Amino acid sequence: MHVLILGAAGMIGRRLTAELVAAGRVGNDPLTGLTLVDVVPPERPRGFDGAVRVEAADLSRPGAAAAALTERPGIVFHLAAVVSGEAEADMDLGYRVNLDGTRLLFEAIRTLSESEGYRPRVVFTSSLAVFGQPLPPVIGDDFIPAPASSYGVQKAMGELLLADYSRRGFLDGIGLRLPTICVRPGKPNKAASGFFSGILREPLAGLPAVLPVPDTVRHWFASPGAATGFLLHAAGLDLSDLGTRRTLTMPGISVTVAEEIEALRRAAGESAVALIRREPNPVIMRIIETWPEAFDTRAANALGFVADASFDAILARHIAESQRS
Amino acid sequence: MHVLILGAAGMIGRRLTAELVAAGRVGNDPLTGLTLVDVVPPERPRGFDGAVRVEAADLSRPGAAAAALTERPGIVFHLAAVVSGEAEADMDLGYRVNLDGTRLLFEAIRTLSESEGYRPRVVFTSSLAVFGQPLPPVIGDDFIPAPASSYGVQKAMGELLLADYSRRGFLDGIGLRLPTICVRPGKPNKAASGFFSGILREPLAGLPAVLPVPDTVRHWFASPGAATGFLLHAAGLDLSDLGTRRTLTMPGISVTVAEEIEALRRAAGESAVALIRREPNPVIMRIIETWPEAFDTRAANALGFVADASFDAILARHIAESQRS
Ligand SMILES: NC(=O)c1ccc[n+]([C@@H]2O[C@H](COP(=O)([O-])OP(=O)(O)OC[C@H]3O[C@@H](n4cnc5c(N)ncnc54)[C@H](O)[C@@H]3O)[C@@H](O)[C@H]2O)c1
Ligand SMILES: NC(=O)c1ccc[n+]([C@@H]2O[C@H](COP(=O)([O-])OP(=O)(O)OC[C@H]3O[C@@H](n4cnc5c(N)ncnc54)[C@H](O)[C@@H]3O)[C@@H](O)[C@H]2O)c1
Repeated sequence: MHVLILGAAGMIGRRLTAELVAAGRVGNDPLTGLTLVDVVPPERPRGFDGAVRVEAADLSRPGAAAAALTERPGIVFHLAAVVSGEAEADMDLGYRVNLDGTRLLFEAIRTLSESEGYRPRVVFTSSLAVFGQPLPPVIGDDFIPAPASSYGVQKAMGELLLADYSRRGFLDGIGLRLPTICVRPGKPNKAASGFFSGILREPLAGLPAVLPVPDTVRHWFASPGAATGFLLHAAGLDLSDLGTRRTLTMPGISVTVAEEIEALRRAAGESAVALIRREPNPVIMRIIETWPEAFDTRAANALGFVADASFDAILARHIAESQRS
Repeated sequence: MHVLILGAAGMIGRRLTAELVAAGRVGNDPLTGLTLVDVVPPERPRGFDGAVRVEAADLSRPGAAAAALTERPGIVFHLAAVVSGEAEADMDLGYRVNLDGTRLLFEAIRTLSESEGYRPRVVFTSSLAVFGQPLPPVIGDDFIPAPASSYGVQKAMGELLLADYSRRGFLDGIGLRLPTICVRPGKPNKAASGFFSGILREPLAGLPAVLPVPDTVRHWFASPGAATGFLLHAAGLDLSDLGTRRTLTMPGISVTVAEEIEALRRAAGESAVALIRREPNPVIMRIIETWPEAFDTRAANALGFVADASFDAILARHIAESQRS
């Protein structure tokens, strides 16, 4: 099986590449080749002796998607996106990459489908940002996507396109609304959600961290490993029973900031917790208080998607992985 | 107030034009001018002495929307669309008109908004086709749009764009998911839904009609007059409390085919009913059985949108109007 990863240089793309190479297989098939595409040049994976092609390309430019499909990959992971804050700050860029880029990809697949019967599995990463206020305490699979950001609108439009191109038989698509990734590896970033990871990652590394919201804030999380696990699970599923509902909210763990801090205390003691400085930020709070708190992910559960075991497990995995790297 | 109608040559556009001209006002404002645009040349309205501009233009072509906005209309009714069957048969056409056409319109408004602070009320007609199986017996305002047709996908994407451009302040938009119009005036057409009107309209004119589905089929209806009433009501509303949920399912009447026929019997007697020939059509039935049956339209009700009083009232209105014309 040849696999294409769009957005391969990103946080999830890099981890997915490494896991695919380590496994040497995807679902029941041996991994024969990899095409890695990103506007930022992706790294060439080490320790893989199948065919590898690495390409720096802007997928919002006409022709880029067709070039990415040269090897007719059986599985396409579409992770390339301008993230939330950037899509809000630069409206044109967000629509160009997240909407037009996705549509150009699906159209390029449709062209090959009509000319030669090509029909890949497409795994598309959507987001909880498709949901906007007013929200119930627990959100079910039937709940209306009504985004409060351009990024959420673009992801919701991508979900609709994915369903239509799947219904018409051009591709066999599944969309995954990923929980907020925690503990997100790497440096602190400017995302409004950054502190959810920061108050764990920084203290665990002996560094101070700022908590801009009250301890009572509740949200929905998955570890980076759970996220790539969802993507790999989605790659191998039989989707014939999905009908037109091609996008599923992924299982996660619903915890409060207070529960995050308790898990940190159990894992690393009082000295780690003492590195968290409370510095209420009304701007961040106004964004965060509109976010979903918990989901009933029945449809995803029925397809065998499984959340992290607990928030302690999320933290333990992060500690183990950061010691390894 | 200058009013722009896009899709002015269509069934609803013509009726809306006539009603605006007859009223001489829109909401609390006198009607000072009208711009009528359609790819089919719209008729020039009679009996109106304000400024009128009539234009034949394809709104999916770049520049057409900007030209339509020349008079900076305070209200834009966006009715232009390729309808369901055509959007399914010609995928490129449907996306070009229903998605790109809508996006080009909103972008043209955004350009004027950014350059000169223009911010019109935009009334967008969406459809029940945004909903797909599995459906509950009664669909609430929180229910997920998961369309089973490209037309439904394009309307759902238009709803999302409308919300985003409204949230960003470029326009003040409201989307109306119109019930199926019944009794639709004019000749029988090839729409799968045609019989809902045909089994009334044809017998009332002394003509035979075919019923392709069982009498138990239930669906959601509004008269043509109720539909234009919704559009005019939407034009004058204060929308500041709508938040990001800018599209509302319109109130309607939920009746079965059997109830339609009973209403026909009461209005025109046994001889009219005898003109209906039952001719089961499995293709039409397979389409119709996926359609919604009834809605709880709480959000629209709260804004003062009101359904027809009864199915008998729908029929009586049709009979009165067809005698007048
Ligand atoms: N991390 C999360 O918490 C989370 C949650 C929900 C959804 N997602 C989605 O998962 C996907 C991957 O997320 P991530 O955390 O790895 O994000 P990321 O920003 O690390 O990766 C996205 C990648 O897309 C690339 N990209 C951007 N524009 C491109 C273009 N025009 N052409 C080609 N590549 C382009 C970027 O260079 C980047 O490498 C994204 O679609 C994101 O929206 C992430
Ligand atoms: N009639 C219904 O039961 C119903 C139900 C739900 C929604 N709607 C929606 O209401 C609106 C009006 O419906 P209608 O019943 O009057 O339909 P209609 O087909 O009679 O009118 C649509 C008009 O749009 C015009 N049009 C198509 N492509 C165009 C283009 N590229 N540029 C400019 N004009 C173009 C057509 O020429 C036509 O006059 C449509 O958006 C439709 O999708 C109708």
